[in-house]
Amino acid sequence: MTTRPDPAGQIWASIDIGSNSFRLELARLSGDRYQRVSYIKESVRLGAGLDDQGMLTEAAMQRGLECLKGFGEQLVGIAPERIRAVATQTLREARNRNAFLARAQAVLGHPIEVIAGREEARLIYAGVARLQPSDKPRLVIDIGGRSTEMILGRGRKPLLAESFGVGSVGLSVRFFADGRYTPESFRAAQVAAGAELEEALTLFRPELWKEALGSSGTVGAVSQILAASGKTDGRITPAALRWCVEQCLAAGSQDKLQLPGLKDDRRPVVAGGLCILYTLLTQFGIEELLPTKGALRQGVIFDLVERLQPSGARDPRADSVNELQERFEVDVAQAERVSSQAELLYRQLAPKPAPELLRELGWAAALHEVGMLVSHHDHHRHSAYVIAHVDAAGFSTNQLQRLAGLALGQRGGLRKLEAQLNDASLLDQLIALRLAVILCHARTPTAVATPRLERAGRQLTLHCPKTSSAEQARTRFLLKEEAEAWAKSGLLELAVV
Amino acid sequence: MTTRPDPAGQIWASIDIGSNSFRLELARLSGDRYQRVSYIKESVRLGAGLDDQGMLTEAAMQRGLECLKGFGEQLVGIAPERIRAVATQTLREARNRNAFLARAQAVLGHPIEVIAGREEARLIYAGVARLQPSDKPRLVIDIGGRSTEMILGRGRKPLLAESFGVGSVGLSVRFFADGRYTPESFRAAQVAAGAELEEALTLFRPELWKEALGSSGTVGAVSQILAASGKTDGRITPAALRWCVEQCLAAGSQDKLQLPGLKDDRRPVVAGGLCILYTLLTQFGIEELLPTKGALRQGVIFDLVERLQPSGARDPRADSVNELQERFEVDVAQAERVSSQAELLYRQLAPKPAPELLRELGWAAALHEVGMLVSHHDHHRHSAYVIAHVDAAGFSTNQLQRLAGLALGQRGGLRKLEAQLNDASLLDQLIALRLAVILCHARTPTAVATPRLERAGRQLTLHCPKTSSAEQARTRFLLKEEAEAWAKSGLLELAVV
Repeated sequence: MTTRPDPAGQIWASIDIGSNSFRLELARLSGDRYQRVSYIKESVRLGAGLDDQGMLTEAAMQRGLECLKGFGEQLVGIAPERIRAVATQTLREARNRNAFLARAQAVLGHPIEVIAGREEARLIYAGVARLQPSDKPRLVIDIGGRSTEMILGRGRKPLLAESFGVGSVGLSVRFFADGRYTPESFRAAQVAAGAELEEALTLFRPELWKEALGSSGTVGAVSQILAASGKTDGRITPAALRWCVEQCLAAGSQDKLQLPGLKDDRRPVVAGGLCILYTLLTQFGIEELLPTKGALRQGVIFDLVERLQPSGARDPRADSVNELQERFEVDVAQAERVSSQAELLYRQLAPKPAPELLRELGWAAALHEVGMLVSHHDHHRHSAYVIAHVDAAGFSTNQLQRLAGLALGQRGGLRKLEAQLNDASLLDQLIALRLAVILCHARTPTAVATPRLERAGRQLTLHCPKTSSAEQARTRFLLKEEAEAWAKSGLLELAVV
Repeated sequence: MTTRPDPAGQIWASIDIGSNSFRLELARLSGDRYQRVSYIKESVRLGAGLDDQGMLTEAAMQRGLECLKGFGEQLVGIAPERIRAVATQTLREARNRNAFLARAQAVLGHPIEVIAGREEARLIYAGVARLQPSDKPRLVIDIGGRSTEMILGRGRKPLLAESFGVGSVGLSVRFFADGRYTPESFRAAQVAAGAELEEALTLFRPELWKEALGSSGTVGAVSQILAASGKTDGRITPAALRWCVEQCLAAGSQDKLQLPGLKDDRRPVVAGGLCILYTLLTQFGIEELLPTKGALRQGVIFDLVERLQPSGARDPRADSVNELQERFEVDVAQAERVSSQAELLYRQLAPKPAPELLRELGWAAALHEVGMLVSHHDHHRHSAYVIAHVDAAGFSTNQLQRLAGLALGQRGGLRKLEAQLNDASLLDQLIALRLAVILCHARTPTAVATPRLERAGRQLTLHCPKTSSAEQARTRFLLKEEAEAWAKSGLLELAVV
């Protein structure tokens, strides 16, 4: 067991919990220079352990937990805010995800965030764009264990990112489960891959990009085979892929396959990966696909670095929130009124607020009315639905769940949030957001003074100026209802004086 | 027991299942002339029978069922397509709604549609606009038992319709439950009404309309009191309302209240109604509110007449679908491709299709991708959520549920729809929609020939041309998956030949 103390606080760590491999990367950044400190990759094939019911088997979970335990030991001494662990398609799919995540986080000693497919794609691009910069418009392809990400981008900017539900593990389990290679199984697997990837053809039209790059997993493995066999210098071409498939057919089965450069842990999934690659190259007319430096795990680190900029100005989530406000035609003026009231109230509850929690509260305020596009009636429920399911660059699924919880709890009874309210940090955000919504209920540009808010244990006291205006009378009426809602919840007492 | 045969097939019937009263109206229309044949109103006060848990009490249900049994007897002999029964706020809210509706439909002998608040508002306006035409921009207010509808409109066009969750029954139960009238209870009820109605001030600004009209319920009752007392000629003014409130306070309680023109069935809810009226008149600076002819029950009839125009061209639901496509940025070209394929397939399943079912299928196709605004991933689920919860003029909640079911079932497994698939008409629509989605999977403008579809009992046979294009191979792959999905469902067998 080695520990890796980081007294200088300079090390960043990312953990990529993939469907085929789990990866740990530690790195230093000085200026724009990225320097790998260490890299561990383990072939866990978590994605092969999803049964018919979409449940992870205990055996697969055990493989994953063992690997993460080892990773956890490598993280000792690294500042927690410099560590980020993300999980992709298999955990997006697994119905018993939460049971696994609870155990996984315990052995890793760090939270694990499940990220959506497009978010995965965006982060892959961030890795590629930084480690292999170019000004050409490019297509980046990452064939993972249970999903394939495609990104069209230029410079550091991803222009279009999409995730498709087909990967090397999933396709191999479906069409090559018995380990036998036949022309029929290759043909069927290619048709299935083509059906899943078809929409990519419309989205990532060949005229939009000048070069095609492949990141990580399948691309890396196939590239190594081609280089080791002397078929190419590592670049992937349709002719070279046909040669690979012929080798498979000649061998007749996975066990007998002899390909130079093919590692044993790749053997069970190489056929599925080849079918996806071949389908993509022929569909897009790609003459050569170049293996690239940069992958999800590095993108995660670059993203984390941007988030932690002191100003938060480069946080990609801020752009994402603005885009969502526009997409869902949010009343931005009202959202800003609520946001600034919420922040002022929250600072009274948490005098030294964690920057991340404060930002999160601002985003919740920015998005709490997105559901109005669906219907004014019960808009808090629609907002929660939209936030929980929307594609929002930069956000993990976990954080979107928190924001959805805040949107759902923006008004009305609190019982609907019960489980989430065990989290003290969310509770404070919720108090602030709900009071802000009430104070801004008139939706008018008139500035509303922020009342003083005091806490003594479970007792909150809100000092509300007494005036006789109809508007103030309504505010007090709503605050009285608010006090009743909290009293019912049993979580705290709110006195309005 | 009277029966009212309608051999000429000229009678229209509407049933308004309100929170305070149930109403039945039978009418004839010749050209634009509306002629009432009969009108029955019963004070059921269903809305007073909602308990703390949002459950209708058995006593309230019994009152409702007894009334509907009588209504059912009046409907004998009227063509079913000329009858429409709608239910409003209390059934929108009641958690045991479905249990009541099942029994209610059985005694009425006709389906009952729960309509959303904005739809109720729109239908009220349709009644007012036709029975009391004017060119002036006007504000129409309908204070019901548990909701208040407000509509800004001009001529026959409602420009803005909204529903607020405050009504005469609800407010009376909350602030005058003991039947006592005190200055404090009036003040508190007015503040509560003001808080609920506040947003109306921004939406229905006084400069937008020239006259204010009140429809039905509370407005009619108060107008009668004022006319019978000689305070006004029936119009409602702030001064006259103050006089009414003073009479209440002088009486001290509901039992002792002596107001000319006050009917006994209105007595328990008059105070709540007065508070809402007074709040509205003072908030909007309304100098006089005129009682109007035309209400929900007549709007329902006019709407039904428009729906049944042979061309369907005036069906207000068609506009609504277009508006939703725009609001949710639907790929209209793709929606149209799917729609026309679905129609051609459906006509093979149902050689003489009911026009309403055919239209419904077209709307389902038009809206099946609305959820893409939320996320491409699982968009069928998001589409279903949006359709089930959206404000869509002209649609009942029931019909939106059907459309949501079709959107949810557009692809993937069928288990998620189980309950809805007992409905044979929905099953046929679903078969057609799913096959259309598959046939149009390439999303290209190229016309796709509609394959021949045959049915023999539970066996469907789809005759699919065999070509060797990659595109056709994918279609066949998807059709194979489709056949597997139906086989799993146990509902039918699909053979693709």
